[in-house]
Amino acid sequence: MSSPASAPNYGELTRIYTRLYRYNHLSAIVGWDRNAMMPPGGSAARAAAEAELNALIHRTRTDPRLAGWLRTAEQENLDDIARANLREIRRDWRDANALPEALVEAKTLAGAKCEHAWRGQRQANDWKGFLENFREVLRLSREEAKLLADDTGLAPYDALMDRFEPGVRAADIDRIFGDVKTWLPDLIVKAQEKQRKEQVIAPKGPFPVAAQRALNIEVMTLLGFDFTAGRLDESTHPFSGGVPEDVRLTTRYNEGDFTRSLLGTIHETGHARYEQNLPRAWLGQPVGMARSYGVHESQSLSYEMQLARSRQFCGLIAPLLCKHFGEQPAFEPDNLYRLWTRVKPGYIRVDADEVTYPAHVILRYEIERALIEGAIEADDIPALWNENMQALLGLSTRDNYKDGCLQDVHWTEGAFGYFPSYTLGAMYAAQWFAAMRRRTPDLDARIAKGDLKPVFDWQSKHIWSQACLWDTPALVQRASGEALNPKHFQAHLQARYL
Amino acid sequence: MSSPASAPNYGELTRIYTRLYRYNHLSAIVGWDRNAMMPPGGSAARAAAEAELNALIHRTRTDPRLAGWLRTAEQENLDDIARANLREIRRDWRDANALPEALVEAKTLAGAKCEHAWRGQRQANDWKGFLENFREVLRLSREEAKLLADDTGLAPYDALMDRFEPGVRAADIDRIFGDVKTWLPDLIVKAQEKQRKEQVIAPKGPFPVAAQRALNIEVMTLLGFDFTAGRLDESTHPFSGGVPEDVRLTTRYNEGDFTRSLLGTIHETGHARYEQNLPRAWLGQPVGMARSYGVHESQSLSYEMQLARSRQFCGLIAPLLCKHFGEQPAFEPDNLYRLWTRVKPGYIRVDADEVTYPAHVILRYEIERALIEGAIEADDIPALWNENMQALLGLSTRDNYKDGCLQDVHWTEGAFGYFPSYTLGAMYAAQWFAAMRRRTPDLDARIAKGDLKPVFDWQSKHIWSQACLWDTPALVQRASGEALNPKHFQAHLQARYL
Repeated sequence: MSSPASAPNYGELTRIYTRLYRYNHLSAIVGWDRNAMMPPGGSAARAAAEAELNALIHRTRTDPRLAGWLRTAEQENLDDIARANLREIRRDWRDANALPEALVEAKTLAGAKCEHAWRGQRQANDWKGFLENFREVLRLSREEAKLLADDTGLAPYDALMDRFEPGVRAADIDRIFGDVKTWLPDLIVKAQEKQRKEQVIAPKGPFPVAAQRALNIEVMTLLGFDFTAGRLDESTHPFSGGVPEDVRLTTRYNEGDFTRSLLGTIHETGHARYEQNLPRAWLGQPVGMARSYGVHESQSLSYEMQLARSRQFCGLIAPLLCKHFGEQPAFEPDNLYRLWTRVKPGYIRVDADEVTYPAHVILRYEIERALIEGAIEADDIPALWNENMQALLGLSTRDNYKDGCLQDVHWTEGAFGYFPSYTLGAMYAAQWFAAMRRRTPDLDARIAKGDLKPVFDWQSKHIWSQACLWDTPALVQRASGEALNPKHFQAHLQARYL
Repeated sequence: MSSPASAPNYGELTRIYTRLYRYNHLSAIVGWDRNAMMPPGGSAARAAAEAELNALIHRTRTDPRLAGWLRTAEQENLDDIARANLREIRRDWRDANALPEALVEAKTLAGAKCEHAWRGQRQANDWKGFLENFREVLRLSREEAKLLADDTGLAPYDALMDRFEPGVRAADIDRIFGDVKTWLPDLIVKAQEKQRKEQVIAPKGPFPVAAQRALNIEVMTLLGFDFTAGRLDESTHPFSGGVPEDVRLTTRYNEGDFTRSLLGTIHETGHARYEQNLPRAWLGQPVGMARSYGVHESQSLSYEMQLARSRQFCGLIAPLLCKHFGEQPAFEPDNLYRLWTRVKPGYIRVDADEVTYPAHVILRYEIERALIEGAIEADDIPALWNENMQALLGLSTRDNYKDGCLQDVHWTEGAFGYFPSYTLGAMYAAQWFAAMRRRTPDLDARIAKGDLKPVFDWQSKHIWSQACLWDTPALVQRASGEALNPKHFQAHLQARYL
């Protein structure tokens, strides 16, 4: 990455962003520690230390000199990578500077208050109580969206979504989700019909934690995780953290059920490999980061959905299960495959299978977009939720807020514009595997033999090495030869479930 | 701790030092992580992030506004604790500001070069090679001592030592070590004579790591370690790290020998309890920190030497050994006691028993003081080393630099003035236990029954709760009713070894 003598302003920017990268390193490691290692007595002191670091990071991102450097750097002689880096620096700078501090603070406070009360209100099915706090969160989120819209020239919801999926617009989502809605409800019904005849044997526990951990590590190794540059530990809420040079995965063990930890670890390994394989030469600068939430999710779902739940991969995992837990009929590959591809509409998004999951996302997208645009009010949510759940999954959530519109943490904190990324990730993943199969026609046969190199090579060339060189639509076009096309996701579900 | 409206300058200082406390929290946690958790691939990025944080901490401690606030805060109306805090802030400020940055940098570079080369030179017994780098380290250390002396009005070696033992002077050390030299060589000979008749049974391994860890945790619990505010993990070089609110101990396991890990963990637990019991209300300010290196070592040696190697404590540990490793003759309490109190003069300080250890420290103190004062040159070290080892321990190190003057890391990095703290710690510990026995005449009987409350209560009242309220000599006087008196250490050794 060039920072020639002829580009002194760009040079100043890269120096600041190198410093930010190091501050963020500290933040990532102490954050991982808080979740995976810290005893409860450390939490007050840690909160103070992390708040101090966050304030420092904020001061650095809002340094008044940045605006001038950004303006003049645009005129400097930069190569393509430096220019992409400058674009990403501007994105980050805008993100940090677009909103007045009073609004950021008010929204943080209102979000924290709403989120905190929500934990109890969800249990108590207390929609009325939730509304009292949530109206303020929504008001501030609309104000935020409006200011971001003024700043970017985008529509308000687009401006929110652009922070998670650069370049993707609500018009794209409408086109894609509109297509999905034409075939998904029918596919869900047919998949269930087909599965009604299947016999599925449940695995018999207990599955000791040490054996589960050894299994997870073996599968992570099979999936290419680099243990010289990362770790696997435990936390209540599993995540992929750390830094690209040292990725920290966590999982949670339940001795009665190894599947959740195993598939969760495979999911996080997908995130981890993206981070571990970002281009080394660009690390430290924004252009060297992972592209977006949706693209990140496409990597985790490539491993969890495309790979791990395939019949081929079940054949690879079966002997590992026998090795670590002893043999049992449930570990037969065909049975594992049936087990890991069950379709069952349910109320809860995070428990949903890959077929019904998009329905959960579509209904949230439609509601949150209307909320931000002012087409509906907070009071309208439950009725719309119930209506959409009926239409998409045939389930009623009337008067059941707990398992309906109160189930997610996102809105409580005012995180609007994020939900589409989950399903975009699933769709990108299907599109990536379609592209891989065009390039490697015997891909599935090779996966069945344990040869994952064609997958890794494709990811490396088209996703990992590209980091933030392009915005999301351009990355998708370059990687797969076309814009995001929901037909690949549909074809994947049809092939697997019909 | 007061920061009244009438003390605005003092208030500014406490705000800066609260910020520093939080930065140091981040530093402690990522430092622990580097030693106990980080995979090797993370080290370059971590080094950069830690260097950035160190630079930030340095900038904060050398903020030009501090000098003025310090001057004016002296005139403000402060209570005793605030005044002690102001004294400690001035100490820290002086430590950060007394030396020109060019000197600090030159010494860091020369020290790193010397230390790096020393690792190989020590193995190769290459004194000549070492000298080439060490002369520069010594030259810069003398310059440092001179500048610190000018700044504090102390003699050069005193100025160095004051950073580790506030208020302790070379004249005190001369008095104390002079006393020790009159009786120690004879005591070493007599202890060995007495032990020559004893039969000692060596424990038979292997001792599985999981069992050693469980044993360590049980003994830490017996010693009052608070696991809701700390952890025990593993690292190559065991240490006590983290922050007072969240203390991170590490140990190293060898399946052939549980003793080193067990006694090492007990040692670190002594450090840990000091940190865990610093006064909560003062945490975040310098007055709330542990007093000094020597006082800290007195806490670890109180547990390792005074408690753990006593006959009473061996009686407490014996059943735990049987529980975790199964019964064997070596675990009989009298045998454990003989095993853990063997006296044998040797070349290596870190392997020395508590009787011969002071000899190692005395010889280093005499040489390093003469080096700093310019009474000798680096070339004179080996002859003096050999002469002192002969006089104190009856061992020759002629031409054996590897096991002589090349064995320690301290001087390679220019850390002069630190060695006395080790033996001061042992002496304080003996003096503390003498004071405890005056207050609790049946102390040993109570320890034998597993009742350690009188020990903990005394430590809490006289050491832990006092933090940095007094300088070291005043703390010693208040805690034990007299200045440091080597007779307590002598009496302890006589009672245990003669």
